[in-house]
Amino acid sequence: MANWLETLDRRAQLRARAGLTRKLRPRSAADPAVDLAGNDYLGLSRHPAVLGAAAAALSEYGLGATGSRLVRGSTDLHHTLEAELTGWLGAQQTLVFSSGYLANLAAVRALVRPRTLLISDAHNHASLIDGGRLSGAETVVTPHLDVDAVRATLAAAPGRPAVVLTESVFSVDGDLAALARLHGVVREHGALLLVDEAHALGVTGPGGAGAVVAAGLAGEPDVVVTATLSKALGGAGGLVAGPAELIRHLIDTGRTFIFDTALPPAVAAGVLTATKLARSGDDLRAELARRADRGVHQLRTAGLTVSTPAGAVLSITAPDAESAVSWAADCLEQGVAVGCFRPPSTPDSRSRLRLTINAGVPSVDFDRALDVIVACAPQGARTGRQVTA
Amino acid sequence: MANWLETLDRRAQLRARAGLTRKLRPRSAADPAVDLAGNDYLGLSRHPAVLGAAAAALSEYGLGATGSRLVRGSTDLHHTLEAELTGWLGAQQTLVFSSGYLANLAAVRALVRPRTLLISDAHNHASLIDGGRLSGAETVVTPHLDVDAVRATLAAAPGRPAVVLTESVFSVDGDLAALARLHGVVREHGALLLVDEAHALGVTGPGGAGAVVAAGLAGEPDVVVTATLSKALGGAGGLVAGPAELIRHLIDTGRTFIFDTALPPAVAAGVLTATKLARSGDDLRAELARRADRGVHQLRTAGLTVSTPAGAVLSITAPDAESAVSWAADCLEQGVAVGCFRPPSTPDSRSRLRLTINAGVPSVDFDRALDVIVACAPQGARTGRQVTA
Ligand SMILES: Cc1ncc(COP(=O)(O)O)c(C=O)c1O
Ligand SMILES: Cc1ncc(COP(=O)(O)O)c(C=O)c1O
Repeated sequence: MANWLETLDRRAQLRARAGLTRKLRPRSAADPAVDLAGNDYLGLSRHPAVLGAAAAALSEYGLGATGSRLVRGSTDLHHTLEAELTGWLGAQQTLVFSSGYLANLAAVRALVRPRTLLISDAHNHASLIDGGRLSGAETVVTPHLDVDAVRATLAAAPGRPAVVLTESVFSVDGDLAALARLHGVVREHGALLLVDEAHALGVTGPGGAGAVVAAGLAGEPDVVVTATLSKALGGAGGLVAGPAELIRHLIDTGRTFIFDTALPPAVAAGVLTATKLARSGDDLRAELARRADRGVHQLRTAGLTVSTPAGAVLSITAPDAESAVSWAADCLEQGVAVGCFRPPSTPDSRSRLRLTINAGVPSVDFDRALDVIVACAPQGARTGRQVTA
Repeated sequence: MANWLETLDRRAQLRARAGLTRKLRPRSAADPAVDLAGNDYLGLSRHPAVLGAAAAALSEYGLGATGSRLVRGSTDLHHTLEAELTGWLGAQQTLVFSSGYLANLAAVRALVRPRTLLISDAHNHASLIDGGRLSGAETVVTPHLDVDAVRATLAAAPGRPAVVLTESVFSVDGDLAALARLHGVVREHGALLLVDEAHALGVTGPGGAGAVVAAGLAGEPDVVVTATLSKALGGAGGLVAGPAELIRHLIDTGRTFIFDTALPPAVAAGVLTATKLARSGDDLRAELARRADRGVHQLRTAGLTVSTPAGAVLSITAPDAESAVSWAADCLEQGVAVGCFRPPSTPDSRSRLRLTINAGVPSVDFDRALDVIVACAPQGARTGRQVTA
């Protein structure tokens, strides 16, 4: 018994020695740091209309949903939000969850039947991976963005039900899956495609509807979309969108829907308003694209190794975990908050700074932030190599 | 490909034939039904001070947390809430998650080492079960509340690390685990005890601190507490409380903490105020106890089979799934919302009405609701047998 704490302690020491300790940096409401770390891509988390809608719902419905929607009743706000999301995504139906994490757990499990083979991109998010683990299905991890590897894996399992799991805009490097090609391969083999649009929703595609819509795959019967309401939509919660049969199946059997308290009504109301703003936010997306171009150009010119962003996320390679941590810390000292991704939260052994673009951050602050990042770069980061991914 | 929808459809038809289809009942802000279905036990979800705190935080911090606390920074509200919860629970440290579901997934996984044996009560919540599945550990399910079975299972696995998983007040029937005895057995064998206090927090124990505190087990190094902030605290979110080494381990390695957007600051603020109100809410708890006594007495007198509630949850046995559904529907038609638990969301084959007591519901409405439940009872429910559990 006592030795479990010693074991935890020993493991903590090993992590510390490897530079893998995580620290919770305090953040106040008046955080002075320029935000290049969060996922509030369109700046909607602080939009007055979003806050107004949330405040109104707060006083009307109270703080929490007070139960599962199946037990406690399903508020009209949840329904209206789902209808709005369905229209935006061009899906047949949508179900909202209390987080993107729980949405992914449910979606992956719902697609797995006996003998199903899961084929999962090496950069996929933890929630997709955990969904696969929970499903118990055999999983093959294919190299990042490698459509040929997916094809070969499918070809090697003829007659087996198969589900291909991918993000569209990937969370770590912000690069984009070749969805149309991937779907071609999936269709050819009679498999299913699950696309996690967490970092694409609101950011890419016509009216910000995401990469699945952009690829012309909306509403296809073999495509299932998941996403989170916590990034470009500025709130919290997740969604699964797909055929009506799937949504019915999730309502009847999805453990993380049935046995979980619903998203707070006030959050649903805020996200509903944010969705409408995102749909009409072409100006915000144009600003994101301009900043992404500017950022990539300036950082690469400085000799840094930068991913090619498809949306509002990009990464800069760091020489190692420790220098990534001190690079990020130096930036923060200069008033710039950036993400720092190290193993085991990176899908490969590379450590990175991860930058996100928030259209709500004043342009001058963004430009200054780029200067700071370059100025703080450790020597080993200026290799000039460019990540093509 | 097309046949996956046919498969889903076939399974839906099987569920329909077995009376296991679930329906989302619409609920408006001005829902006229008396709430005996939700988990807002102390009525705090609508308390003016809770709403005021949430509204203030909404305008200060915005709608969402905009990222994982590790990447985006950890708001002072989250820290203050954790400190308050730690004091209340008498724990060494507390970590807040975005839901109770995700807290349980992380907690169970964190306690599993190579060769760990999980021993899980047959009535445990889906999130504890899923945590076990995700951990990959071998799991033995012991009969509900059966401490001797836990002892025997531990005795049969000498030298193996073992973790006993239980709720305190159980979600389905509202009955209470014998925590002190269970802990004695756990301690004797050098195992660990994880207690999910979802339905006990705010409701039982001194100052509503829960059943672990009541059993004198607070702060014990071999006891880990999880709970949700979505029931008596009226909001959303979850917690893990335990030794500092465990919390550090969760911050460094807990996938559902690291890779999940944090609880919205406004929800954290509302829950913080709710926690203070719950701590000083002995009057509310006394009212809950009075209503529980009244309810059990009246329902049993009517010949119904009623569980013995340790908190604010009780269940009434229904003859079968279909009559449970129509019983609940009849109640709703009379303006009374009750839960209806059927397989597969019950841990045994029994169907039940599940009633919850909400101290915020006017007393006359509660009394009328009891009358309605009795009046709507199907013939087969009046067996007069009493569930001792
Ligand atoms: C790709 C991806 N999927 C799912 C999630 C989970 O969403 P949530 O934070 O709403 O749980 C995230 C991030 O948090 C993500 O980056
Ligand atoms: C016993 C128990 N544990 C955990 C949970 C999950 O909590 P949450 O709804 O916050 O995800 C619930 C209910 O929802 C529960 O009843």
